[in-house]
Amino acid sequence: MAKRIFDIEGIKLGCASSNTRYGNREDSLVVTIPSEAKLSGKFTSNKLRAAPVTEAIQNLSSDEKGSKVLLINAGNANAANGPKGIKDVKKYCKEIASDLGLNQKNVIPFSTGVIGQALPVSSYLKAFREALTGLDTRGWKKAARAILTTDTKPKIVSKEVKVGKKTYQITGFAKGSGMIRPDFATLLSFVFVDAKLSQGLLNKIHSEALKVSFEAITVDGDTSPNDSSMLVANGNKEKVVKAGSLDERRLTQSIIETFKELAELLVEDAEGATKLIKVKISKAKSSEQARSVAFTVAESPLVKTAMFGSDANWGRILSAVGRDKTVEDLKKLQIKLNGLPLVKKGFIDPRYSERASSNAMKRKKITIEIVIGSGNYNFEVLTSDLSEDYVLINSDYRS
Amino acid sequence: MAKRIFDIEGIKLGCASSNTRYGNREDSLVVTIPSEAKLSGKFTSNKLRAAPVTEAIQNLSSDEKGSKVLLINAGNANAANGPKGIKDVKKYCKEIASDLGLNQKNVIPFSTGVIGQALPVSSYLKAFREALTGLDTRGWKKAARAILTTDTKPKIVSKEVKVGKKTYQITGFAKGSGMIRPDFATLLSFVFVDAKLSQGLLNKIHSEALKVSFEAITVDGDTSPNDSSMLVANGNKEKVVKAGSLDERRLTQSIIETFKELAELLVEDAEGATKLIKVKISKAKSSEQARSVAFTVAESPLVKTAMFGSDANWGRILSAVGRDKTVEDLKKLQIKLNGLPLVKKGFIDPRYSERASSNAMKRKKITIEIVIGSGNYNFEVLTSDLSEDYVLINSDYRS
Repeated sequence: MAKRIFDIEGIKLGCASSNTRYGNREDSLVVTIPSEAKLSGKFTSNKLRAAPVTEAIQNLSSDEKGSKVLLINAGNANAANGPKGIKDVKKYCKEIASDLGLNQKNVIPFSTGVIGQALPVSSYLKAFREALTGLDTRGWKKAARAILTTDTKPKIVSKEVKVGKKTYQITGFAKGSGMIRPDFATLLSFVFVDAKLSQGLLNKIHSEALKVSFEAITVDGDTSPNDSSMLVANGNKEKVVKAGSLDERRLTQSIIETFKELAELLVEDAEGATKLIKVKISKAKSSEQARSVAFTVAESPLVKTAMFGSDANWGRILSAVGRDKTVEDLKKLQIKLNGLPLVKKGFIDPRYSERASSNAMKRKKITIEIVIGSGNYNFEVLTSDLSEDYVLINSDYRS
Repeated sequence: MAKRIFDIEGIKLGCASSNTRYGNREDSLVVTIPSEAKLSGKFTSNKLRAAPVTEAIQNLSSDEKGSKVLLINAGNANAANGPKGIKDVKKYCKEIASDLGLNQKNVIPFSTGVIGQALPVSSYLKAFREALTGLDTRGWKKAARAILTTDTKPKIVSKEVKVGKKTYQITGFAKGSGMIRPDFATLLSFVFVDAKLSQGLLNKIHSEALKVSFEAITVDGDTSPNDSSMLVANGNKEKVVKAGSLDERRLTQSIIETFKELAELLVEDAEGATKLIKVKISKAKSSEQARSVAFTVAESPLVKTAMFGSDANWGRILSAVGRDKTVEDLKKLQIKLNGLPLVKKGFIDPRYSERASSNAMKRKKITIEIVIGSGNYNFEVLTSDLSEDYVLINSDYRS
């Protein structure tokens, strides 16, 4: 949890419970956003798009002026429900818009939870209405909790960055702990910035941040129909950020860091995870090769179970690299684990020490460095180990 | 285990223990093959090729006449051992060749077990020599046991096929239960046929059989540096099979069935598996799409854990199809589980019954039928569920 959480001028948050899947735990979140704000939304590439995703994309693309409202519910994904799913999401968006005197296009819905069960519309609608009565500029922690499903902790990152006389605040929260992999991670993430940016600049920064954060993590290789990431600039006139300025560069950097830290929090809390594993590829012949090898290793069940067993099983890492389609040979391959030599020129490094490696594996954070030696491209991906608990959690999710 | 095991004229098998990894369990197998036989060998596509694989490929490609010897050891893969691995395998092949008065090219080695540990050469050499003293035409069951690693049971398939006045016998055995996926499965497999075939015909039948058997199963998406499949025709002059004949067609069919049954036995005994799952793709727009969707679903950890939990979680199956890169939309998609309707036109089938599906999931054999509806290509893949035991076995393999 962030040490200090900065409020973002004009952003208000409210939570309530739908009293459905999670008993009386708060599971419904409303965020109101002032009319001068700009919103950038990026969504799942899964062809199974949840109803709220379809609706959110449509509404975000409209030119409607006025303040915006985000409606987020946890517990039911409203995915794969066909025409009924669309009807349901439209229904509660319309009701809330009408309550607030807004156009329906200004209401952006997000859902996360179980796939393929009809959404209990009236329960969530009731909760959203209740949430609206308790809107608060300091509601971040509660908000971060309300959107969780199988996560064990809320994830908030908050930062302040000074450039000359101006100070920009960034606060974001996210959820997601399984079905996580790029294009992008299964997650909901909401990041808010106290600044005024053009729509084009905001979209650009958003894409850039995603590429090295939520698009560079993987838990199980699965994506979800509900993945959504929002970057919102509140439009504060005192803090105008122009393209090409020092302010833009510094703010972009801080936004990217916020996204990266949220991504790391997600992987740390991945279903059943006991270790955070960074797979760093270098000297690849292309960025495709760097990505491909990184994900092949990061998603190998044999590598992930070895990590869970605290076994520096370099043979499995090597074997995973060897099966990657983009790899031609292993002659120049080097592998290190937390700095210790495992593999050199494609086989066991003469300096390899079973004892040193076993000690290194006791740490919770593991870095696997893989030098391919065929070019100059790099890529990093974050992943978790594969534990018995992952299986337990996922074999028992619906029941 | 096959009901009746047919001996294959001229093929002799002998086993012994190296007294290394598995105590006094027999872990070393010798198979002798008469000089008139033809051998077809197919090997791993993993760029990390184990030393015995490199040696086997080299020796099989030689034109050396005379009888052949297969040397198989379990417990140590002799992979990723660099020049020392090659030196070691050459050493014991040379010694055995010299014992038998054969050229070293006539000795074909295979290894399976832990990667990256030096092979205890003298122990296995001693075991191979001992095994040679007990050669037996009826040694199939012992042979099938000797090559096992984490497998829980031996896998043997034996068949007889009559064509006109001739009767052909086929007997094969295989091992492998993790690190299994095509190009091809991590496995050693040895199939012997009582017939005389040309080298060309034998290679063709072998490729054909692999495509629908070991190249169509997956346990964890990982391949091994040691995958090897041998198809051996003993060269029996009484049973000449000519290309294009009825005999060829019938025999090919039986060989394919033998391979498919062995592949099924492997998946049934996959590490920690409690269910055998067939993923049947039909009406794909191309064979690539059919293969791609089949493997995406069969390797999805979320689908596999749901299967372990006996949960007919059609949302996860649908979501896995949705993230496959070759899939454009889900409008015509249908999914059935053991014949029961789950998904129609991309969302829940109105005929879906939670109760019927739950009952269906109690079976050990599950068939997931996925009709894509964009063309006319089919593909089938066999897989297992993902259980806590898979994690336990693989987090504790080396120690």
